Parts: sequence; structure tokens; C-alpha cells
Amino acid sequence: MKVLVTGSSGLIGSMLINSLADSFEFSALDARSSDHAPDVPTLIIDGSNYESMEKAFEDVDAVVHMGANAPVETPWSDVLKNNISMTHNVYEAARQHGVKRVVFASSNHAVGNFELDEPYSRIRVGDYEGLTPGEFKQIDHLVPIRPDSDYGVSKAFGEATGRYYHEHFGLEVACLRIGTANAPNKPVGVRMLATWLSHRDLAHLVSQCLTQPVGFEIFYGVSDNTWRFWNTDHAKKTIGYAPQDNAENYRDSI
Amino acid sequence: MKVLVTGSSGLIGSMLINSLADSFEFSALDARSSDHAPDVPTLIIDGSNYESMEKAFEDVDAVVHMGANAPVETPWSDVLKNNISMTHNVYEAARQHGVKRVVFASSNHAVGNFELDEPYSRIRVGDYEGLTPGEFKQIDHLVPIRPDSDYGVSKAFGEATGRYYHEHFGLEVACLRIGTANAPNKPVGVRMLATWLSHRDLAHLVSQCLTQPVGFEIFYGVSDNTWRFWNTDHAKKTIGYAPQDNAENYRDSI
Repeated sequence: MKVLVTGSSGLIGSMLINSLADSFEFSALDARSSDHAPDVPTLIIDGSNYESMEKAFEDVDAVVHMGANAPVETPWSDVLKNNISMTHNVYEAARQHGVKRVVFASSNHAVGNFELDEPYSRIRVGDYEGLTPGEFKQIDHLVPIRPDSDYGVSKAFGEATGRYYHEHFGLEVACLRIGTANAPNKPVGVRMLATWLSHRDLAHLVSQCLTQPVGFEIFYGVSDNTWRFWNTDHAKKTIGYAPQDNAENYRDSI
Repeated sequence: MKVLVTGSSGLIGSMLINSLADSFEFSALDARSSDHAPDVPTLIIDGSNYESMEKAFEDVDAVVHMGANAPVETPWSDVLKNNISMTHNVYEAARQHGVKRVVFASSNHAVGNFELDEPYSRIRVGDYEGLTPGEFKQIDHLVPIRPDSDYGVSKAFGEATGRYYHEHFGLEVACLRIGTANAPNKPVGVRMLATWLSHRDLAHLVSQCLTQPVGFEIFYGVSDNTWRFWNTDHAKKTIGYAPQDNAENYRDSI
């Protein structure tokens, strides 16, 4: 299966290509060249320019769209260009070139304001008083959109576009509300005891999204953390997501 | 109460200013001057340019944001500029200038793909067999986003931005998923027997949004049509929406 990865110089994009090199034939699209980028055919191009980026979509079976400004604090002008415009372009180029499937890096920040509410507001700071893991209502894929930033709004935009392209043009779309996948690849700080996503669980999740049947789906990308507050049942049931890691094992070192 | 109307040369913007002139002190913002525009102070400016449009927000209590490309078929480049960028700018300018409330012209097209499903797919073409008005599940303000177009995606974007600005900055936001408000001000075609919104019901709805307490709300803008499939209970309960018109009265002339 030929898979185009956008954002191949980024933390997640490069990790995915390296981890899954034996399973997929990768090509890449990125705004910049990078010494850290994996050795695959890469088009260096501004993804907000449709005419120049679309040729990367020729002869491709699926797209893993990770290219974006990743910080939640990204200013609006960059969100507009690199998250909103580019994400539209990815769906449109996929449609125009007959690419069957898009795996879209959405984010927990599309629904980040649920963390203003109990019990999530307490769990994120390590106040577990009166709570038992798994015995409170988790945030699932059916909750309304509650972005915590322009960045989060752009991820909600990407999900809405994905649903439109699925329902009108038949594109298969999996949106991953990714938790915290970080460079140290272990939880750093109390919130990550809930939100951490290990590199191997993320690579497995993306692999399942590429190989299992999907329609339009929203999955939370989070490891099997004892104190996670995002529900992973939909991913487990739909594509057989089977996370192996648990942030709790790192509690003593956060 | 000083109210800025964007899109004052448009069908709805101009109708609102004329209908509600006795109740509010209006000013306006529009991309173009127009003979049809009501006689209020109007800034003619490109709303996608933040620096030039924000001065319209000085000394204003509320904004009614109707300015956008209205056709559902609007191409992406115009949607991006005039719906997405401008709508972001309206929320941001409201925040920067201490404007307390935004009434946003969302659209039924943010959830338009529910009309692919029964019974809405049948009602929209006048096939009522086996159905009784009010005895099927209506589409309410809690359903997931299901846009039917890039235009619909841009309206979902505006709702998501509104929720973010409400929850983070305290802006009061009412999003109106407007049905079909048209120039003849009567239903034209079978679908409008479900979706029609009369001018007086729309003016009343906007007036209630400006004067009644709101937090972040999503209301359907539709008259009291016998065959409507959008639920208006939330608007009736929250702001006392009391529509007077019913498309059914025009059935013989559609």
C-alpha cells in the first residue's frame, strides 16, 4: 500500500515512517527538508498552495495528514494557512487523484474545553479524590465540539471537512484526536498521566486506520493510561486498536 | 443598544435593519455599497482584512454577523476568505473592542447531510407517506456536525469559533442555523414547506437573540411550518422564540 505522509519532518510524521517502513511504501510532503526526515521520496512544498502540492497525491492509496503547525498557541494567521487551507487541500487533492483514504491528525484540543469541567479538571492536575479509574464518564467521539484554541478550531474544521468528503465523495476518513505524543516518549507532568500516547501505540493506531475498514470515524489517540479520560472503545471496536502502554508505569519519574 | 450588522447590503442584513430600526441603533459593515442598503452609518471594507474592519467594532454593544458568501455552492477560495477569515475577524474584533454579544448567521447546511437520511430525505421532496407532523425525531441543536458543502463546513467553523470565544473570553454567542429566508418571502418549491423562514419570524428571532440572556447557543431559524424537521424547542425555551408563520399556508401556490 502506497502511503503519502504530510509533515514528514515532524516528530510524529518521521516516527511513523520509521516505525512502519516494513508495512507501507511511503512517500512524503513537507514544508521543509530536514536531516531528521526519513529517507523516502519527499516533495518540499507549501501545502497551502494547491497547485504545487497536489502532484504528491498521484499514484497513492492513502494519505496520513500530519502536516500542520502543532503548538496549541499557534497564532491565527498560521492556523489559517498551514492548518485550515492545507487540510482542505489534502482532502481535495485526495478526491481529485482517487486516493481512497485519509488519516487526519486531529487533536484532543478540538474538544479541549471539556477539561474545564469536573472530573477532568481535577484529573489533569492529579487531584483524584473520590475518583476511581474507569468509573467516571469518559469523553467519547460523540461529544459536541468544544475547542480550546484557534488551533483546536482548525482541528474541528478538519473533522467537519472529512465528514463532508466522506458523505459526498466516498472518501474513507479516520480522524485521530491525538493526546500527548512527545519527544521523550514518556509522560512529563501530571496531565500526561491521563493524556500520554506512546510512539508505538500511535504507530499501531495509524496502521490500523490504514488497514481496517473505516467510514468516517473519530478516534482518540491515547495509550491505555489508568487515568485517561478519553474513551477508546470506538477505536478498539471499529479497528481493533490494542494499546500496550500505560503512563502510570512512569508515575515515579514524572 | 448599539448593534453592528455585517452584510448590510444582503437580503437578510438589509431586511433586519429595516424591520428592527425602532428597537436598535444600527451601524453596518459591508464589502460593497448598495442602493438597497438601509440608511445607516456603513463602513465599506473587505471583512477578511482585520486591520481595516475592526474600527467598525468601536462603541458597539452587539454584532449581528450576516456578511458572507451565501450560496451553498460558493467555491472554496471565496469560502476561505469571506466566510472563514471574516468570521474569525468578527469574533476577534468583538473581543478586542469589548463587544458583549455576537449573533452569527450559521446555516442549516452545517448539518445539511441529515437530509440524506429518512424521514428528512422524503419530507424534503414531499413524500409524507406514513409520517405525521411532529411525530418523527427532529434534528436538534445537539446532533453532530454533518456539512453538505464547503459552505456548510465554514458555518460549522463559525460555530466552533463562537464556542471557543464564549468559553475562553466570555463572549455571548447565538448561532442561528437559518433555514430558507428568500426574496419572495414565501415558500418556493416543496423543500421550503419544511425549511422556510419568514422575514418577520427571522427579525423576531434576531431581536430575541439580542435582548434575551444567552451563553453559547445554537438555534434553528425556521418558521412554525407543519412539516419542519428542525427542532425549535431550544430557541423557544431559551429566548422565547415565538414564530407566527407556517409555510403550509402557501402550499397551494408553491
